[in-house]
Amino acid sequence: KHYRIAVIPGDGIGKEVMPEGLRVLEAAAKKHGVSLHFDHFDFSSYDYYEKHGQMMPDDWKEKIGKHDAIYFGAVGWPAKIPDHVSLWGSLIKFRREFDQYVNLRPVRLMPGVPSPLAGRKPGDIDFWVVRENTEGEYSSVGGRMFPDTDREFVTQQTVMTRTGVDRILKFAFELAQSRPKKHLTSATKSNGISITMPYWDERVEAMAKKYPSVKWDKYHIDILTANFVLHPDWFDVVVGSNLFGDILSDLGPACTGTIGIAPSGNINPEGNFPSVFEPVHGSAPDIAGQGIANPIGMIWSGAMMFEHLGEKEAGKSIVEAIERTLAERTLRTKDLGGNADTTACGKAVADMVD
Amino acid sequence: KHYRIAVIPGDGIGKEVMPEGLRVLEAAAKKHGVSLHFDHFDFSSYDYYEKHGQMMPDDWKEKIGKHDAIYFGAVGWPAKIPDHVSLWGSLIKFRREFDQYVNLRPVRLMPGVPSPLAGRKPGDIDFWVVRENTEGEYSSVGGRMFPDTDREFVTQQTVMTRTGVDRILKFAFELAQSRPKKHLTSATKSNGISITMPYWDERVEAMAKKYPSVKWDKYHIDILTANFVLHPDWFDVVVGSNLFGDILSDLGPACTGTIGIAPSGNINPEGNFPSVFEPVHGSAPDIAGQGIANPIGMIWSGAMMFEHLGEKEAGKSIVEAIERTLAERTLRTKDLGGNADTTACGKAVADMVD
Ligand SMILES: CC(C)[C@H](C(=O)O)[C@@H](O)C(=O)O
Ligand SMILES: CC(C)[C@H](C(=O)O)[C@@H](O)C(=O)O
Repeated sequence: KHYRIAVIPGDGIGKEVMPEGLRVLEAAAKKHGVSLHFDHFDFSSYDYYEKHGQMMPDDWKEKIGKHDAIYFGAVGWPAKIPDHVSLWGSLIKFRREFDQYVNLRPVRLMPGVPSPLAGRKPGDIDFWVVRENTEGEYSSVGGRMFPDTDREFVTQQTVMTRTGVDRILKFAFELAQSRPKKHLTSATKSNGISITMPYWDERVEAMAKKYPSVKWDKYHIDILTANFVLHPDWFDVVVGSNLFGDILSDLGPACTGTIGIAPSGNINPEGNFPSVFEPVHGSAPDIAGQGIANPIGMIWSGAMMFEHLGEKEAGKSIVEAIERTLAERTLRTKDLGGNADTTACGKAVADMVD
Repeated sequence: KHYRIAVIPGDGIGKEVMPEGLRVLEAAAKKHGVSLHFDHFDFSSYDYYEKHGQMMPDDWKEKIGKHDAIYFGAVGWPAKIPDHVSLWGSLIKFRREFDQYVNLRPVRLMPGVPSPLAGRKPGDIDFWVVRENTEGEYSSVGGRMFPDTDREFVTQQTVMTRTGVDRILKFAFELAQSRPKKHLTSATKSNGISITMPYWDERVEAMAKKYPSVKWDKYHIDILTANFVLHPDWFDVVVGSNLFGDILSDLGPACTGTIGIAPSGNINPEGNFPSVFEPVHGSAPDIAGQGIANPIGMIWSGAMMFEHLGEKEAGKSIVEAIERTLAERTLRTKDLGGNADTTACGKAVADMVD
C-alpha cells in the first residue's frame, strides 16, 4: 500500500521532533511493506506568519486536502503571536474545515515513565479519551454588551447538534465495543449545566441502546477528574464534549506522567478529509533549539496514524518499540531521567521497530 | 458574641454527620466564649419533598434569611428525586437568591489521610480554590430547536457580567494578599473558549493592577488540572469560573485524598445574606443509615463558618482538633483505615478542641 502524507513541523520543538517521527515511520514502513511519500510544508508556523502575514496560504486546502493524512509537529509561540491567531488560524481550522470531529488520545502508563500516582504500575492504566472536536463549548457564537461600563457582560453559547453529538458517541461506543472490557464512561455535568448537558446524557442513553454489549456509566466532570486520580483503573473508553474531552485528555496523560510523550489524532473517521496526527505537547519555546525535546509524542502519533490508515501491524510495531525504548534509562531523554538527546532517542526507537 | 445558626441536615448521611458537626461547634463555642443558638429545619430534603411536593416552604427566605449563617448537611437522592429538582430547588437557590457568589474550598493534605499522589507529605499541599458561584456556565439561558429531527440542536449560554467577574476576582486577590505566599492562579481557557474566557483574562489583568503585592499567573484549565496532579505545591489561591471552580474544587481534594472530608463555604462576603457551610461530599445513599459516615467534612465546614463569622480562634481550634484526630488511626472512620464510627470520630474531635 502507498500513502501520501503531508508533513507540517510547525514551531519550536515541533521542528526537532518531526525528523525523529519520520525516521521511525520510515523504519516501520520498510519492515511492514508499506510505502510512504512525504510532502513537506512550512506553513502553520510563526516563521510562515512572519513572512506572509497569515498562518497558511489561501490555497492550504488544495495543498493538503488530498493527502491520506497530515503529520503535524506543534504550533504556537505565545510570546510572538497570540494563540487565537496561531491556533485558530491552523490547528482549529483543520479540525473544523476537515471535519475532524474525533479527537482521540490514549492514556497509558508506560514502562520507564514515573507516574505521579502512588503505587500504579504499567498495565494498571490503559484507556482512551474520545473528545468531540468541532462544536460544543468551542463555538464562536456570542458577544459583549455595554462595553467598559458597570453593566458590561459577555455571553458565549455552547452549541450541541444532534449530528455532532451522535457521531462522536457512535465512534466512542464502537471503540468500546472493540475492546476487551467493552466499557464506556460519559463525562457530563447535567446537574449544573442544565440545558446542553442533559441533552448530551439523553443522546448517550439513546446511543447505548444500539450497543447492548457495551457497559456504560456517566460521571459529572468534577467527580470524574477526581476519579482519574483516585481510580484510573476504572476506565476503558471515556467520551466527552469538546471542553470536557480537552480537560480529560490533559489530565489523563498527567496521571500517567506522560504529558510530554502523549500522542493524539484529530480524526475524520469517514476519510472525506485527511486526519491530523500530532503530539499533545506544544511547541515548548523554553526548550526549543537545544536538541533535548522528547520525540516520543511525535513518534507515538505516527503509530496512531498507521492505525488510522489501516496499517495496524506497523502501528503496533512502533508502540512496542516505544515501550522497549522507554524501559532503558540511557535511551530516554532528560525529562524522563535519561541522557539521550532527541536524535538518539528517535534512532533508538527506529532500531527497535520490527 | 452571639450567633443564630440555621441548621439544615438534609438527606442521607447529612443527617448523620450533622449532630457531630453541632457537637464540635458547641465544644469550640464554649472554650472560646462564643454563644450559638441553633434553629433546626427539616426542609431541603427528600423527606420534606415527599410530604410537601416541593423542596422548601414558600417562605424559606423569611425562615432562614435572617440567620448569621446556615449550617448545611447534604442534599440529593438521585434514585428518588432528580438532581434538577433537589439541587436547583435548594442548594443552587441559596447560592443565587442569597447571592453567595463565592464558593470557597481548602485543598490541604492532612495527617493520616493517604494522598493518591506519590511522595507528598502534610504541609506540601495547602491552597484555596475560589469559585464564582452564581453565573458563568451555570446559566439557565438557552434552549432546543427542531426537536426529534436530524436538525435538532441545543444551545446554552455562558454569561459573565462585569459585576460577577470583578467581585469574585477581588475576593480571590484579597485572600491571596492576606496569605504569606501572596500568589494567585487564574483558571482560563481563552485559547479555545474564545469570547467569555478572554474577557475573564482581561478582568484578571485589570484587577491584578490593584494588588501589586500579589504575584499572579494563569493556566488553561486543561494543563491546570494536569498541574494539580504534577505540581500541587505550586498553588496558593486558585480562582475560576463556576464550572472551572467546580472541577478544581473536586480535583484538588481528590489529590489530597480528602474528598470525603473536604469542607466548603458558599459565601456572601458583604453579609447581606447568610452564607452556607457544607461538606463537599453528598448525601451518599449507599452508606446512609449505617453510622459509618465520616463527619470531618461537616466539622471542618463548621470551622469555616466560625472563620466567616469572625471567630478565627474558634475556627482554628477546630481545624487543629481535626488534625490531631486524623493523626490517630483508631479515631478515624473506616474510609480512612480506622475503626471509629461517626459518633466516636465526632466525639474525639470535640474532646480535642481547645
Ligand atoms: C451538585 C452540583 C450542582 C454542585 C455544583 O456543580 O455546583 C456540586 O458539584 C458542588 O460543587 O457543590
Ligand atoms: C491549543 C488549544 C486550542 C487546544 C484545545 O483546547 O483544543 C489544545 O489544548 C488541544 O487539546 O489540542
